[in-house]
Amino acid sequence: MEVIVPFSTDRPKSRLSDVLSADERAAFARAMLDDVLDAVATAGGEPTVLATGAVDVDPPVTVDDRPLTTAVNAALGGHFEADGASDAAADPVAVVMADLALATPAALDRLFDAGRDADVAMAPGRGGGTNAFVASYPAFRVDYHGASYLDHREIAAEVGADFAAVDSHRLATDVDEPADLAEVLIHGEGRAAEWLRDAGFALDADEGRVAAVRG
Amino acid sequence: MEVIVPFSTDRPKSRLSDVLSADERAAFARAMLDDVLDAVATAGGEPTVLATGAVDVDPPVTVDDRPLTTAVNAALGGHFEADGASDAAADPVAVVMADLALATPAALDRLFDAGRDADVAMAPGRGGGTNAFVASYPAFRVDYHGASYLDHREIAAEVGADFAAVDSHRLATDVDEPADLAEVLIHGEGRAAEWLRDAGFALDADEGRVAAVRG
Repeated sequence: MEVIVPFSTDRPKSRLSDVLSADERAAFARAMLDDVLDAVATAGGEPTVLATGAVDVDPPVTVDDRPLTTAVNAALGGHFEADGASDAAADPVAVVMADLALATPAALDRLFDAGRDADVAMAPGRGGGTNAFVASYPAFRVDYHGASYLDHREIAAEVGADFAAVDSHRLATDVDEPADLAEVLIHGEGRAAEWLRDAGFALDADEGRVAAVRG
Repeated sequence: MEVIVPFSTDRPKSRLSDVLSADERAAFARAMLDDVLDAVATAGGEPTVLATGAVDVDPPVTVDDRPLTTAVNAALGGHFEADGASDAAADPVAVVMADLALATPAALDRLFDAGRDADVAMAPGRGGGTNAFVASYPAFRVDYHGASYLDHREIAAEVGADFAAVDSHRLATDVDEPADLAEVLIHGEGRAAEWLRDAGFALDADEGRVAAVRG
């Protein structure tokens, strides 16, 4: 399955600027991207990176500096056109965000499986975002603004695509804010967790929920 | 499967005090409890409520005003004793928190299934808590302090129980803090979501993640 991984090379992870410098945010974002690409490949996906600028990775890279929604819709259109699909039975394509540092092959397997059954299978992000989906329905398009998960359910209904939700904490956890770093330390098994530990972050269980604090 | 649902009748949901009055927090906590009890029963579980004080619900109620860890361990001990289990092959028992307002029968099915295969199957909560588990291993005991999910993995390893993680956003979402209310509005299908809407809460997609704001 083709798996598009959008990645921003300019000002990545700006909401982590209270705890990480610009260089650190870039390095951490890259560690997460590498983890996601590995998990996708291990789950049997064929990753391609859809980046806003040049990025040196093994999988093929498409550079598109337009806004995320425009770039992803262009990639979806390209996929379905190349596929020659003109109706509701197309080869599935996945879009998996590059900041899903908790993604494992098992979690992605569940997403890919759901996407083989439903026209659109989607893993919601915490806070109503869309962290990952599989579409095999050429008329489906994205709109990443606001509570995009609910919008995408509506878009699927409007174009006549059936929809399946994928219930995964790992895929729901996009790493955007300082509170998310604790999830990486608790559940992460790859480079991103190692990067945080090397940068001095550790779990602090003093308050209600465990936080990541820097030593 | 016996499913123990711990429920606090005194000062429930204190971390929501910025957005809900004490009476409102009690009513909202009760709506969540009712949703959880329904989901457990629909998933084929036999719920019992383990409450710190009297509560008027259909399922059997055990009142135990000791701290959560002590009360749950006493209930686990009671279950395994009644079961006559003296070794590693006991009838499974589940513990599911009463504030899992997003819990669906499908999510609980996955937990119960995992708990039939592993000695201990556990759904982590966001922030490292333990939101739900199934144990069929009489020596397993809980300790809800701090990052309890990691502690429980260790306890399972120490007593020789094999451990399975259940990857569910619905079961990872315990409703403790104002940010969690958005999850209820986005994904909730029961009384708790209805209660929030009736109380004037709606989604606000202005910022990065969608928030629940009161109109």
